[in-house]
This record gives sequence, structure tokens and C-alpha cells, in this order.
Amino acid sequence: MPSLTPVASGGNAVLLLSCPDRRGLVSMLSQFVFERGGNIVDLDEHVDPVERRFFIRISWSLEEFSIPDYELEEAFRPLAEELGAEWSLRFTGRKSRVAVFVSRYDHCLQELLWRHAVGEFQIDIPLIVSNHPDLRPLADHYGILFQVIPLTGDNRAAAEEEATALLEVHDVDWVVLARYMQVLSPAFVERWKGRVINIHHSFLPAFVGGNPYRQAYERGVKIIGATSHFITSELDQGPIIEQDTVRVTHRDSVADLIRRGRDLERLVLARAVRLHSEHRILLNGSKTVVFD
Amino acid sequence: MPSLTPVASGGNAVLLLSCPDRRGLVSMLSQFVFERGGNIVDLDEHVDPVERRFFIRISWSLEEFSIPDYELEEAFRPLAEELGAEWSLRFTGRKSRVAVFVSRYDHCLQELLWRHAVGEFQIDIPLIVSNHPDLRPLADHYGILFQVIPLTGDNRAAAEEEATALLEVHDVDWVVLARYMQVLSPAFVERWKGRVINIHHSFLPAFVGGNPYRQAYERGVKIIGATSHFITSELDQGPIIEQDTVRVTHRDSVADLIRRGRDLERLVLARAVRLHSEHRILLNGSKTVVFD
Amino acid sequence: MPSLTPVASGGNAVLLLSCPDRRGLVSMLSQFVFERGGNIVDLDEHVDPVERRFFIRISWSLEEFSIPDYELEEAFRPLAEELGAEWSLRFTGRKSRVAVFVSRYDHCLQELLWRHAVGEFQIDIPLIVSNHPDLRPLADHYGILFQVIPLTGDNRAAAEEEATALLEVHDVDWVVLARYMQVLSPAFVERWKGRVINIHHSFLPAFVGGNPYRQAYERGVKIIGATSHFITSELDQGPIIEQDTVRVTHRDSVADLIRRGRDLERLVLARAVRLHSEHRILLNGSKTVVFD
Amino acid sequence: MPSLTPVASGGNAVLLLSCPDRRGLVSMLSQFVFERGGNIVDLDEHVDPVERRFFIRISWSLEEFSIPDYELEEAFRPLAEELGAEWSLRFTGRKSRVAVFVSRYDHCLQELLWRHAVGEFQIDIPLIVSNHPDLRPLADHYGILFQVIPLTGDNRAAAEEEATALLEVHDVDWVVLARYMQVLSPAFVERWKGRVINIHHSFLPAFVGGNPYRQAYERGVKIIGATSHFITSELDQGPIIEQDTVRVTHRDSVADLIRRGRDLERLVLARAVRLHSEHRILLNGSKTVVFD
Repeated sequence: MPSLTPVASGGNAVLLLSCPDRRGLVSMLSQFVFERGGNIVDLDEHVDPVERRFFIRISWSLEEFSIPDYELEEAFRPLAEELGAEWSLRFTGRKSRVAVFVSRYDHCLQELLWRHAVGEFQIDIPLIVSNHPDLRPLADHYGILFQVIPLTGDNRAAAEEEATALLEVHDVDWVVLARYMQVLSPAFVERWKGRVINIHHSFLPAFVGGNPYRQAYERGVKIIGATSHFITSELDQGPIIEQDTVRVTHRDSVADLIRRGRDLERLVLARAVRLHSEHRILLNGSKTVVFD
Repeated sequence: MPSLTPVASGGNAVLLLSCPDRRGLVSMLSQFVFERGGNIVDLDEHVDPVERRFFIRISWSLEEFSIPDYELEEAFRPLAEELGAEWSLRFTGRKSRVAVFVSRYDHCLQELLWRHAVGEFQIDIPLIVSNHPDLRPLADHYGILFQVIPLTGDNRAAAEEEATALLEVHDVDWVVLARYMQVLSPAFVERWKGRVINIHHSFLPAFVGGNPYRQAYERGVKIIGATSHFITSELDQGPIIEQDTVRVTHRDSVADLIRRGRDLERLVLARAVRLHSEHRILLNGSKTVVFD
Repeated sequence: MPSLTPVASGGNAVLLLSCPDRRGLVSMLSQFVFERGGNIVDLDEHVDPVERRFFIRISWSLEEFSIPDYELEEAFRPLAEELGAEWSLRFTGRKSRVAVFVSRYDHCLQELLWRHAVGEFQIDIPLIVSNHPDLRPLADHYGILFQVIPLTGDNRAAAEEEATALLEVHDVDWVVLARYMQVLSPAFVERWKGRVINIHHSFLPAFVGGNPYRQAYERGVKIIGATSHFITSELDQGPIIEQDTVRVTHRDSVADLIRRGRDLERLVLARAVRLHSEHRILLNGSKTVVFD
Repeated sequence: MPSLTPVASGGNAVLLLSCPDRRGLVSMLSQFVFERGGNIVDLDEHVDPVERRFFIRISWSLEEFSIPDYELEEAFRPLAEELGAEWSLRFTGRKSRVAVFVSRYDHCLQELLWRHAVGEFQIDIPLIVSNHPDLRPLADHYGILFQVIPLTGDNRAAAEEEATALLEVHDVDWVVLARYMQVLSPAFVERWKGRVINIHHSFLPAFVGGNPYRQAYERGVKIIGATSHFITSELDQGPIIEQDTVRVTHRDSVADLIRRGRDLERLVLARAVRLHSEHRILLNGSKTVVFD
């Protein structure tokens, strides 16, 4: 459920909502905004005709809105309950707090931190967590706290508890696995359901699991890909947020695929982070609705 | 202005509208639909922040709608006038009537007729017009009337009058130039403003005018493209609907560029025709808003 | 082994060859051509560093070549045997003879016949084979023999014998399965090894088997693809020739994926046919080397 | 003309050569290598059929080559002169020395330095030159000398002299303009002909000159692009090395185009630098031959 922090007047509210489809939903929701003085600046909706489920993203200006942001959730709850909706409310004035988990590869972290630095993401990054110290200089260059939690083979549970404590201390909303080479426990995954974004270095569902570039090389594919998805308890089976592919040829060695794939991984993960930071992603069972 | 033909009950109405931006537009328009028993199945809107202009496409089910389709235009007019809107209303039960103009190249016509035959476009094609008889067998294969209006150099005005008469007789809504290799007169262009779609064989604004593939070859570009746009009185300057590009190399001769470009032309023109047939394109000055 | 038919003087010879890698191969092979008066117009080579195997495609002008084409194979054999090579020789003056197998979907056949008609493929198509009569009008339009061999469930062996007899009568070099919806027997596959090109409507190895678009819809992927490959005895596991992908969204139904995928299937299969017709494909175990 | 530095035994030699086309060129050149004990590891050639000019890139192993690298140029010269060739010889053991010119935008420099750090380019970067001090911290992070040469409006000639002196002191082979926002003098351009790579933020020849993203916005294009090219005395008219494009929509503001375009600029410039660092680019008049 959404947590509300008072924000400076101005800015926009963003409502993400899904519910069983019925007549008049767009009208009811836009009316809710309009009657309270909000000006809709963006509205996108989708009906899944198979599941008969309705999805909407509405963004409106709070400039002349009659309800203070800290009361908005309460004001909206009755309508949401009437619709049987899953929903969340965010304010552009209150940035999401995002932690990044990494291991030794630097390309995804590099990409995220650079984009963050030039202002592409409306998020705060209070914390980077790693099982190795290698990327500390990169974190330092961008002035972000870098916390090493070593994994020794038999301390996984304790390590995850330490990570969880850190995420709580830093009031983290969601987590990005930027080529974090460890499998998370079901308990951790369940706790952070819908809030952990991973990058897998293949066009899923092809080449699940380890060494996808070697698998791709051995199969002799003419395209490789990368996939950003939410983590679930089944490896590489979570709802897909974003994918992209690039052509390769018989000339490309495994090392070439890794090099070309790095560019895909960086771009695909960055797009997913951008989409989530702008509250554009809804879950639809094992799939996503992305209002881009 | 929209012409209304009574349709069988059922189907959807599609409203395309643009007007100066103001507070509450989405709410007002969705309320108009909801209060009359319409169920919105698709809504997409856009605000041009520079021109402060609002654009919307609303599609709703007529199943339990309280107003018969032949009265809908009248019923909506007061609200439209209050908003100072440009607008049109279409019904999915009434297909647009589209004429295709061709010369000698068959690839774009082939593509349109095949897609039409497999049901990709919700249009009728009552007529193909050409200044050459070459493509008659293709028209015959698909059972579509093929009318030759030869151009002799000094009969352009008479030829266009004859074409205009044909378009009127066949109650044509809009025209597709499928590699029609003739320049239309300003009078014809003005009369059919916003209703003639062309395919140009370059990524405009590069390589305006004749022989764009030769121009591309001589410039040594590494990508070529195709552009679908509305015709205006200035050659190749009309509002762009759709574009695409493909990589080429130093190995490609002019003939190779022509061959590769043909695939782009076919796909880009087909996408534009599909978009327009589904009432997804609005004009915004010299640009388009495409609700895809 | 290559079969040689006397050709008109002029034209080019194309040698496709692979052998264990060793020093001086390019020099030896280009010397063979040069010493006999041939002028190399295209040469492309590749060394698989893992398998230590050498691949080459050499194309040379026969204009002043000292050996008549019908003696070239004999003249080259000693060098080929010294190298332990697999090889084939083709002449641009002697077109490959290609049969197309179809069922009911017309898009791939349409694409191949149209491209063939405008001269994109240097092949002859003496024959179309189908288990249904539906596409006969299309074959008729292009003036190509259309032979129906119905499949009744228990006549597969007899049907394949009939097909094989037809292929022999028409002196067919290789076969294209243009959305032919039947599995071929291991005996047929073995007999035509490396000479049957299929189009599968997914980006292999994702979505092997039936209904790949439905599989893609249910997995919620953001890209779909198509794959052209040589047929082997394992379903959808043959060496990949060409692939391509296109972006899709949550708005795309299964029907939309089928529609979008059709465009990929057409283009990917056409590219594979073009590549094979120009003798640009070599097998490398379960993979291909494509000299594009 | 190539300058030769003794290299450690081992590594490869790379010959880039173009000359008027004639019979037997591949044979003569591969023979030159073979007779001296070289093993060709890569060979790519192209004949421009319009200009009747031959282009080749040959790479061979020096492991058992009979000529020491510092004598190779002399040994090859007689054959080159016989062919009337333009040519250069490089050794993989001797990295090119590349200077980067920047102004205030960091994205291209960031991309180049990161790729350089992970080993994607076989070059040395002894020097970064800028007319502003802003990017010094980035240069420092990667440990590369950063030299500021301020431009005051009337010191251009002196500034270019200072830059030229620096390039000479640091023995620079070629220069990358990584969004260097200054026009270079004809004298500088002439002196460094074929050795200065620029990135232009449009798909040339569209949107030459300043503010191409604003031009693209105003024209309403549906794709934007980036182009890497060699600098010549005519602005944005130099031989194109590499281009790429990305789709945009009516929703994209000028700021969005700038953001999306940044990703293109980074990737396109990085590819061009990689291609040139591997000696894969030949000039063909106002065009390039790129052996990728």
C-alpha cells in the first residue's frame, strides 16, 4: 500500500490502478480528479480482453488540487474499494528510494549511476550493496554509499538479513539487481515481490540460467538479447518489463557476444529503471502492463 | 466534417478531437460518453506543451449507447463548439472508402491489396487509378476496378478532373499514393488536404525530390529509409505519419538500395494506411499525433 | 557433390568450401583461380577458432577462364582432396531449381513468388507442393505448377514418396517450407539434409513447437521473432540461417502477434532464400556460416 | 604514410590498400603474405564497380613471418607501387595513439573512457583536450591527462597551434571529437585529413548544422539518428563511417529527443572508434569502405 510523505505544493500525482473491467471506469476516475480541481496531464488505459481486467495510469497536476497530498490516499480509498482495485499513488515531488545490488561487473552500475547523475531518473540511490569490494571506486566517484556483504557459501541467510536491515534503515522502495550474480532466497523474493528488477543477459525465455552467451554461441543464433524482469521465486520466470535484441554473425566469438550483449544489458536495464521510476509498470499476473 | 451513415447497432464509435488545452477535458469528454451509456474501450490523449493544444482519441462501445449513430454528431456538436475543437466521428461498422493511385511499380500496391485481402485493413477499396495500364492484372487478381487515366504532358488538368469525378462517384474518403510518380496540382492537394497519404523513398527530410536512392548512394549513407506523409503543396514537406530505416553497406549498389528500400516502402506505407484506417492520426500543424 | 551442367560462356563461378584450417589456404585457392585466368570478384573467408576449421566463398569471372565449366570440377578435385575439404561449385548461369511446400497460409508463398517475379532470386521454381488445394489460384497467377498431395493421417509414407518422385522429375536442388504445417519423416529429412529451409514463427530457441505466438502471449514477452533454419530430424533444432525480431506490447492480442509475426516470417524466409540462392551459406556442425 | 615502430615478435599485421581494379589482385597480395610465411587470419575485399577501384584488408599472423616488422614497409613498397595503391600497414602490437577533444557534454567521453578501460579499444589515449575545464574530474577518474585550451573568440588560430603542438608531443595518430562544439579551421582539417572522427547528432544528411534535435522536433520526424564521420572542410559533409536511428513519437519533447539521441551518439561514436582502432576503414572519395 502506498506510503504518503507530505510534498511541496505543486508537482503531479500519479495513480496506477487495476481492477475488474466494468462500464464507466475512465469516467469515474477522471471525474474524481476533475471535481477536486486536478488537471489531467497524462492518461493511459488498457483492458485485458482475456482476463477482463482494467488498467490505468493517470497523472494530474496538483497545482489547484483541493486535497493536500497527505490526505489523498484516504480520499481515494472509498472509490478504490468500490472497484475492488489494486492501486498505488505516487507524487512526482517525492522520489522513489532505490538500492542497487551488484557483484563484479561494472557496466550496468556504471550506466545507472551516470544516467542518475545527468538527471534521467527521478529517484534517489541511497545505497549500493555488493558481495565484492571491486566496484567501490565507482560508487565513490558518484558519492554513493557502498556496502559490502561478503557471501561465504554458508552465510546466505545471515547476509540477506543484513541486506534487509540495510534496506529498511535506508527506507528503500525498490531494488535493482545490476548483474548481481547471486540467487536470492524465496523468503527475500516474497518479501520484495514486485519490487526487485533484474537484468538477464538473454532474450527470455531463451537461454534461462547460467552462461546464456555461451548457450547462444553454441546454438548458433543470429540475434542475441537482454531482458529486464521482476524477480520471482522461479529463476528467470518473472514478469518481463523490457527486452531488446541485436544481430550477431558467425564471426562473433563468445567474447564478442559478451561485449555486444553488455550494450543491450545496459540499455534494457536503464529503460526498465526509468519506466519504474516514473510509475509506468503494472503487474498483470505473470505479465506486465507498461504505459510508455 | 464527418459524414454519418446509419450503421447496424453494435460496433464502436471513435472520436478524434483536438482543441486548446484547458482543465477537465478528459473528464468532460469521458462524462459525455458515460452518461449516454457508452463503455470506453480505448482512450489516448496528448497535450502539446509548446502549442498548449489537447489531442484525444476515444473509442467506445455502442452496445448500450442511448443515442443512435445518425444523431451522435448533432448531440456532440454543442460540446465541441464550446471547446473550440476540430473533430471527427467514425464508426467501426462503416468502413472508410479508399482509392489507390499507382504508376508502374507494383510492390506497394501488391502489399496493400494482399493485406486488404487477409483482413488487415478495415477499409473498402472501390478503385485503383493509374496513368499506365501495367498493373491491371494485379488489380484484376484481387477483383478491384482499375481505371487508367493517361497523362500526355498537356492534359494534367483534365486528367485530375477526371480523377476527381471518379473519386466522387465512388464516394472515396481518402487516397493512397502507392508510388504514384506524378506531382499533383495545388488545387487537387488543397481539395484533398489531410486525405492523401504518400510514400517517399527516403528518410525525410533527407533526400527530398527525385532519385533518393541514387542520392543516398552518392552521399555514402549507412542507413536508408522510407517515409509516409500527408501530401501538401510543398513537395515532400507534408506531415510525417510513419518512417523506418534499414542498414546498408559499401557493398550495396543503387540497385541494392532500391531492392532493400522496396521492403521499407511496403511496410511503412502499410502501417500508415492501417493507422489511418483505424482513425489514429490527428494533424498538429505541420506534424502529426499518432495514437498507436 | 556438385553436378555440372554446361553453361554459356561468361557468368561467374562460385566456390563454397570448408576444411581444417592450415597456413596458406587463401593463397592456394586464389592462386588456383588466378593461374587459370579467373578474376576474383568476391572473396569472403572465416576461421572458426574453436573448431579450427576454415570456410571460404570465392566468386570469379569466367570471362577469360581457361577451363570450360564442365571440366572445372575435375580440375579442382585434386586440390580439394589435398585439403580434406567439403565443397561445392556453382555457376551463376545455372539457376538452382527450388520447390516450395505450403499448406494453407499464403503470406510466405505470396512473398516468395512476388520477389521471384521481380527478379530478386536467381532461382527457378518449377513446382509448388501442398497438402491442400487452397493456394492454387496464387500459383496460377504466377504460372507455376501446383501439385496437391493430400494427407489423410495414414498415408504419410506414400505421400512423401510421391513428393520425392516429383522433386526428382523436376530436378529440384532444394526445398523451401513456406509455413508447411507438417512434420517430415526422418528418412525424407536425411535424404534432403542441408537442402530444406524452414521458417519457424518464433526467435528460436524460444517457443519451440506448436503455437509459438500463443506461447509468446502467455509468457508476456516484449519482442517476438521468426527464424529460418535448415530442417533436421529434431524439431526446430536445425542450423539457423536468419532471424529477426519486432517489438510488441501488452496491447497486442494473440491475433496481433500473428499479424505482426507474418511480416517477420515473410522477410526472414525471403532473406534465407536469397542467401541460399546466391550460395552464401555453409554448414558448420549444428550452426551456419553465412557470407552476406 | 605508415610509420613503423619495432614490435615484439608475434601479433598480426594489417594491410589496408586500395588501387585501380585489375585481374589477380587478391592472388598477388595473398601470395606476398604466403611466400613470406604469413598465415592470413582475415581477408575482406571489395570492388567499387562504378569507380572500378579495388579495396582490401588483409590481416596475417607474424608468428613465422620471415620479415621483421620494421622492414615490412620497405619489402611491400615495390608491389604497392606497381599497383598504384594507397596503403597503410599497422601492427596489432603497436596501438594507435588517440586524442579526444571535448567541450562540456560528458556522455560521449564517458562512453569512450569506460569502453577503453574495459579493453574494448586497442588504442592508447594519451590526452584529452577541451575548451572548458568541466570534464576534468572524469578524465582524472580514468587517469588521463586533461588539457584545457580556452577559446576566447579571437584566439582560435593560437589555440589550434597549441592543440597541434600537444598532438605532436604526444605522438597522436588520430583524433576523436566527442561532442566538441567548435568548428576547426580549414588548415587544421587539411593537416589531419582522414584522421579526425566526429559525431553529429542527426542522421546525416538530414539536419546539418546547429540544433539538429530542435530541427527534428519541428519537422515532426518519427525517427532520429546519429552519424559518425570524418571531418572535412565542409561542415557535416565528411565521409560517413557509421549511423544509427531510433523511433520517437509525438510525445517526445526536444529534451526527450536530446536524451534519446545521447544513447545513439554514444553507441555510434564508440562503434566508429572501434572500427578505426582495428584498421577497418578505407576512404573511397567522399564515402567509406568499412570492413566490419
